[in-house]
Amino acid sequence: MVERLLDCVDLTIEQENDLKNTFPNIEIIKLNELTQQNTEDITIMYGWSQYLPDIDQFCSLKWVQTLSAGVNYLPLDKLERNGITVTTTSGIHGHQMTESVLGMLFSHTRNIRQSILNQEKREWGITEKGTDLVGKKVMIFGTGNIARQLAKTLQVFDCDVFGINRSGRVVEGFTQTCSFEEGNEVLRTVDIMINLMPGTTETDHFFNDDLFSKMTNGVIFINMGRGSSVDTRALIKHIKSGKIGFAALDVFEEEPLSKDSELWCLENVLITPHISGATDKYNERAFNVLMDNVSHFTHQEPLKNRVDLELGY
Amino acid sequence: MVERLLDCVDLTIEQENDLKNTFPNIEIIKLNELTQQNTEDITIMYGWSQYLPDIDQFCSLKWVQTLSAGVNYLPLDKLERNGITVTTTSGIHGHQMTESVLGMLFSHTRNIRQSILNQEKREWGITEKGTDLVGKKVMIFGTGNIARQLAKTLQVFDCDVFGINRSGRVVEGFTQTCSFEEGNEVLRTVDIMINLMPGTTETDHFFNDDLFSKMTNGVIFINMGRGSSVDTRALIKHIKSGKIGFAALDVFEEEPLSKDSELWCLENVLITPHISGATDKYNERAFNVLMDNVSHFTHQEPLKNRVDLELGY
Repeated sequence: MVERLLDCVDLTIEQENDLKNTFPNIEIIKLNELTQQNTEDITIMYGWSQYLPDIDQFCSLKWVQTLSAGVNYLPLDKLERNGITVTTTSGIHGHQMTESVLGMLFSHTRNIRQSILNQEKREWGITEKGTDLVGKKVMIFGTGNIARQLAKTLQVFDCDVFGINRSGRVVEGFTQTCSFEEGNEVLRTVDIMINLMPGTTETDHFFNDDLFSKMTNGVIFINMGRGSSVDTRALIKHIKSGKIGFAALDVFEEEPLSKDSELWCLENVLITPHISGATDKYNERAFNVLMDNVSHFTHQEPLKNRVDLELGY
Repeated sequence: MVERLLDCVDLTIEQENDLKNTFPNIEIIKLNELTQQNTEDITIMYGWSQYLPDIDQFCSLKWVQTLSAGVNYLPLDKLERNGITVTTTSGIHGHQMTESVLGMLFSHTRNIRQSILNQEKREWGITEKGTDLVGKKVMIFGTGNIARQLAKTLQVFDCDVFGINRSGRVVEGFTQTCSFEEGNEVLRTVDIMINLMPGTTETDHFFNDDLFSKMTNGVIFINMGRGSSVDTRALIKHIKSGKIGFAALDVFEEEPLSKDSELWCLENVLITPHISGATDKYNERAFNVLMDNVSHFTHQEPLKNRVDLELGY
């Protein structure tokens, strides 16, 4: 049976050939070839576009393979109602995001950010000694693929890594994993907090005034998960008070971050424009996930990285 | 027998007490207590100061425990002639320098440096995807303590790490170690070059026009060793031509780097002011080395980290 795959990702010629040669039953339709007619024939969607027709019009659609790990930008309600399977590229973000977290962290602890700013003024500068990770306590919110790889890497730097998840279930690669309630005590002694949680209604404004208040003075806060997890107003308050000693932020409640945002010019804030998951190897790695899942799909086997549309991840 | 230790490091009260309680034969003389008379009685020196009397005046001096790993700032000829033992703090720089190398590297590969500069202008920016270390080839010049720890850490990021030393002897923790001559072939395919060699007459201008010419186009060059190892004029030439795609420099031929240096404003250069070895834990770690070696000294055992004064490291 022919499966019509809508390519919202702009596959390369090599990737198209690879796909067609490996799975002769797949017919590829490019985004600019989409018409009112063939919309009804699409069964698989690779990637997503904000300019797509309403998802209800894809009446043959069975499966969406996203290019991302998070899916909070999708119409999850409609997809669930229409019985459409959604799978992610979860598992291909670990390398680049681990390196981004470390880069942002070391930019502060190793005085690199200050050096970059000094260099603009041709100033040798820096009298502070910086620090290193030996003996530091790190808490990661989320224990999925990215968090696990980050935890494994952080332990090479001789620090303790605590993982927080909903149930408190044990996950390998952490010094300790616990539920948020269980983690409340250790929270007060943690040097570095890293958010990697998905954006769901449950994680909405999870990092709020109350939570920031409980953290140790001068804590480092890194947000690589979703901007919606943070109450930006509370974040700014605690940065200004010095409770948060350094904040590295890759995601924001509003993206792109508004020119007016106070975050831009706070002294101990590093802003990156939602790039921690990006890498020149991304499309290749994502394509490997697609190929793998198309194989499962054609053999009617369970797909990898399937999203629970009710939970939203 | 009483040993008089000149403290050029300004030990804390706790450290002084620790030293005196553990080794009752040690008498501590602070730098500001140094007189023409007691100079002749000093047998041990901890640290170094550029304001010390000529080393020939320390006629009882037997041993200098430096605070550094490199010793190219010491009057090695005179120390050798006077039969004075020199030991370093080699082994206490691995953590912080590994983190500095990674911080400088990731500041480029993860687009953090560009984000910091954009943030100053409240610009969201960045269209490049960055990259990650998976599959990258790294060459480290030097296979000592720092290089070994760096190599071990880099391998966690799934890259190949080649170590270069004089003899080509095998050192654990690298994908491969070889002499510079043997490394000549692989050199052309290396993505990231890191200098960690000591500053000696042999390494003087080691990185010259010829060597830079042989590197792959767009290579990343990181100098954390000594500024004297690099011919700055050749470095600038190859940065301007694009042969060197990114240079992260912590050490320079002249320090502090002159306000006039062209390096300050080259686009793909990151300058840090010789801080990669600094950490708030430095004095504590160095003191542990001192304590260890004082124990060996009083028991007339061989000292750790002894410098070959002829080789200069």
